Amino acid sequence: MEVDTIRVFAPATVANVVCGFDVLGFAVNEPGDEVVMRLKNRPGITISKITGDDGKLPYNPFKNTVSVSVKHYLDHIGRSDVGLDIELHKKMPIGSGLGSSSASTVAGLFAIKNLLGDTSDPSTLLPFVMKGEEMACGHGHADNVAPALMGGFVLIRSYQPLEVIRLPYPKDLFCAIVFPQVDVPTREARQIIRNKILLKDAVTQWGNIAGLISGLYTNDIELIGRSMEDVLIEPVRAMLIPDFYKLRDIAMKSGAVSFGISGSGPSVFAFAKDPETAKQINQKIQAHLTGIGINSYQYVSSINGEGPRVLD
Amino acid sequence: MEVDTIRVFAPATVANVVCGFDVLGFAVNEPGDEVVMRLKNRPGITISKITGDDGKLPYNPFKNTVSVSVKHYLDHIGRSDVGLDIELHKKMPIGSGLGSSSASTVAGLFAIKNLLGDTSDPSTLLPFVMKGEEMACGHGHADNVAPALMGGFVLIRSYQPLEVIRLPYPKDLFCAIVFPQVDVPTREARQIIRNKILLKDAVTQWGNIAGLISGLYTNDIELIGRSMEDVLIEPVRAMLIPDFYKLRDIAMKSGAVSFGISGSGPSVFAFAKDPETAKQINQKIQAHLTGIGINSYQYVSSINGEGPRVLD
Repeated sequence: MEVDTIRVFAPATVANVVCGFDVLGFAVNEPGDEVVMRLKNRPGITISKITGDDGKLPYNPFKNTVSVSVKHYLDHIGRSDVGLDIELHKKMPIGSGLGSSSASTVAGLFAIKNLLGDTSDPSTLLPFVMKGEEMACGHGHADNVAPALMGGFVLIRSYQPLEVIRLPYPKDLFCAIVFPQVDVPTREARQIIRNKILLKDAVTQWGNIAGLISGLYTNDIELIGRSMEDVLIEPVRAMLIPDFYKLRDIAMKSGAVSFGISGSGPSVFAFAKDPETAKQINQKIQAHLTGIGINSYQYVSSINGEGPRVLD
Repeated sequence: MEVDTIRVFAPATVANVVCGFDVLGFAVNEPGDEVVMRLKNRPGITISKITGDDGKLPYNPFKNTVSVSVKHYLDHIGRSDVGLDIELHKKMPIGSGLGSSSASTVAGLFAIKNLLGDTSDPSTLLPFVMKGEEMACGHGHADNVAPALMGGFVLIRSYQPLEVIRLPYPKDLFCAIVFPQVDVPTREARQIIRNKILLKDAVTQWGNIAGLISGLYTNDIELIGRSMEDVLIEPVRAMLIPDFYKLRDIAMKSGAVSFGISGSGPSVFAFAKDPETAKQINQKIQAHLTGIGINSYQYVSSINGEGPRVLD
């Protein structure tokens, strides 16, 4: 019996990872998005259901990033004849800085790849997910896309040509994420960043990214923590996040290895050496946010080494 | 019989390593400087001989970086009573971009440390060599100092506080160095660099340094080569080196893995996968320089994993 329906999960991602603006990202096990895809008898792509998006995402298949990416892929492999229906189940907030659009797009592309029996490495889908991100965010930055697709911790060594490198990471590194429910659109979060920076700050930054990469290769969690400082982007974006420095203080005092902004925010994340510490960090951060009248979601997860996966 | 005379070699170094301005450096086996140090019966430091410096370096022990650093060290350990005489034998050109002053200072400090039977790790001498460099170059940048002292390939993760990380490197990586005899003083070479840079160029640069670090940990020489691109400093400093881009072209066509400026120049260096290729690269670069009327020195070396050593 040929499979004609598939359900796929793709993970949320933390991009930038504090000192790796635009070049580092990792995937988490929770949250993530789900896509249900059904092959149909006649050509054309439809979207029959979207849940969890508060009505924000378009059903028009020419405007939804998932369907646009899938169509781009089908055209590329010469299978424009394929007809299919998409259900998109958002299991994470939109505009959270957790790679929400990447997760949906990766889920869609991984679904069609599997439905068509394409056994090539998922990383071959990278250009198609990038296309979707360009549409969603106005730029095709791979630091959310690549970890969502390939899992684990990844480095975008180069954008032209695109070169993605899988990095090792300590297995006992846990990620605490809190999403404060305030609005920070990606486009605007990018616009407030200065185009020109001081060379001396850049030197500090690349010393740190080099330290972080070393720490990942040597399983040195303390070095990873010391290296996760951002003198360039964080001081600007921190303004968009309520009580950011207070939240950092709370996280570090609760045992965090490091703390920073996930992607363009407003989600913040911390690394911790065990899930209990990660949970405590989140509880204290949420309590502080509640105290200043801000609702939040929280997630605790290890790093997702797998990327998207077929469910059921 | 107590040892009261010692002869020490300390290696030349290649700082910056193309994409790691101010934070990366490695030591080579050739060239390097030698210091002969002799304990004396009465306090005070004298310099009795300097060779190979074309009369450029001061005999005044309060002005020579070697004696100043040694005195600083003796004061620090409470041994201002120690008297000694220094011979400095420069075996590499001054102002070459090969860490000439670092090599001399490291040799001097390693000599006194050994003479006094101090068995601590050589890296403990770092602050004292930094002091010497501050005097010689007007800044205490550790990217020459640390590899000269510790050997191998090092990362200055942070300057405040100073944190130096030893990096692994492929054992079959050979370094071809050519020093064209033109004058590029370190101080001036720093001054022509812009204080402000474009964020997008910095992103390119930290993608590359992250790629280089990954390549060093994974023994991936091709990745090391691809990552060694500098969009920030090299385009400015290249102007100080005759036919720089032509030299790069010659090196790459002769089988170099990568090519760039050593430190602040004018020395250039290439990585190669075997010593024969390294020699050929140097021959062709020297032939081109000769053709445009410029004399040069050349060195072929593996990476020096040891740092300074006692001779005889």
